[in-house]
Amino acid sequence: MQRHFDDELKELHKDILKMGVFAQESIFKSIEALKNRDRAQAQEVIDADDRIDHLELEIDEKCIDLIARYQPMAGDLRFIATGMKINAELERIADLAVDISERVLEIVDKPLLKPLIDIPKLSSIAQNMVRDSIDAFVNKDVGLARKVVLSDSEADKLRNLVKDELVNDYMKKDPSTVDRAVPLLLIARHLERICDHTTNIAEDVIYMVEAKVVKHHPEQL
Amino acid sequence: MQRHFDDELKELHKDILKMGVFAQESIFKSIEALKNRDRAQAQEVIDADDRIDHLELEIDEKCIDLIARYQPMAGDLRFIATGMKINAELERIADLAVDISERVLEIVDKPLLKPLIDIPKLSSIAQNMVRDSIDAFVNKDVGLARKVVLSDSEADKLRNLVKDELVNDYMKKDPSTVDRAVPLLLIARHLERICDHTTNIAEDVIYMVEAKVVKHHPEQL
Repeated sequence: MQRHFDDELKELHKDILKMGVFAQESIFKSIEALKNRDRAQAQEVIDADDRIDHLELEIDEKCIDLIARYQPMAGDLRFIATGMKINAELERIADLAVDISERVLEIVDKPLLKPLIDIPKLSSIAQNMVRDSIDAFVNKDVGLARKVVLSDSEADKLRNLVKDELVNDYMKKDPSTVDRAVPLLLIARHLERICDHTTNIAEDVIYMVEAKVVKHHPEQL
Repeated sequence: MQRHFDDELKELHKDILKMGVFAQESIFKSIEALKNRDRAQAQEVIDADDRIDHLELEIDEKCIDLIARYQPMAGDLRFIATGMKINAELERIADLAVDISERVLEIVDKPLLKPLIDIPKLSSIAQNMVRDSIDAFVNKDVGLARKVVLSDSEADKLRNLVKDELVNDYMKKDPSTVDRAVPLLLIARHLERICDHTTNIAEDVIYMVEAKVVKHHPEQL
């Protein structure tokens, strides 16, 4: 029985890793679509969301089923419960990649306002944070989870840079740029919110491992 | 044992209702702060977030503890698991009220761009959706949950109205309005995202009760 349970728990690891890879891919492709003004790629991210939604439900079902059949004790139960929370965060992250892709479609036919530098940088941070937070979960690696939490302020700073530049150097100076600047401003915000979700994941991992309330108290990290 | 379990389940109802009331209050106060240019009230919402974060953790602990001690069967287990998901959504909703309050602080010293009509309307929709989605959960009321899901498109439309007006009638016509328009645009988006979270709650309730995959398939409603 224990062996079966362990096998199924490993399956759950794999599923959540898969969900994490999907989420990373969606972020990557949405920003590639922006860089290359590629309507088809933006649409691909939007279309892939169904698959991710289904995987979310499947994972949830597996978690409930695992708990119902094996009635695991505290540690494993907490791991599965955390898996459900992370699963929901990853689905939200994929939703935000869809939001980005929708913004891309709004501006795909217009010339780029400026060379893209900070937004791709923010996207890389976001993708790394997704990867690291999921690795931290699967390996119960508190150190890596803490690294993710600390990365979030870097993402916030970069988002503010993008916003200030778009507002001060473009929109306020030349109102004809507003239509192209607002979607970029929102894309930066979507990326930053993706980072927030990965921070939630990392905090859940720390809490799971240490079972103490670091969540919402980054000063204790 | 069953009586104790039922009592504790009722406690869980109460806690989640309380969390829902906190979330509604935060939305209400953040928009009142906007309407009345009230810095203190915006700050109050930001300060209250700690209490909500703690309640989230407390509820999560109670859920895991309930499962570990009583090993409930399928129906109750699904109810508790759904409670954990809703708990997380409510905490995110309160976070978005904090986001709104931060935007309010950015413009609190500047004259209002225009009389506020659609944003308070959007806020009312959001608050009602929060209330209804939690009531739907506690009463396992699928009809009410469906109503919440359908309200979301109304919220989307209103958000688009706000955005179009701010972009076309203000920012593009007069770049000196950008500093005041961007925070309003973001507030409308925060409110719409609150509505998205309540839709998640409502879909979770439908799924819990009917245990079929309506989530992500609103066309089947």
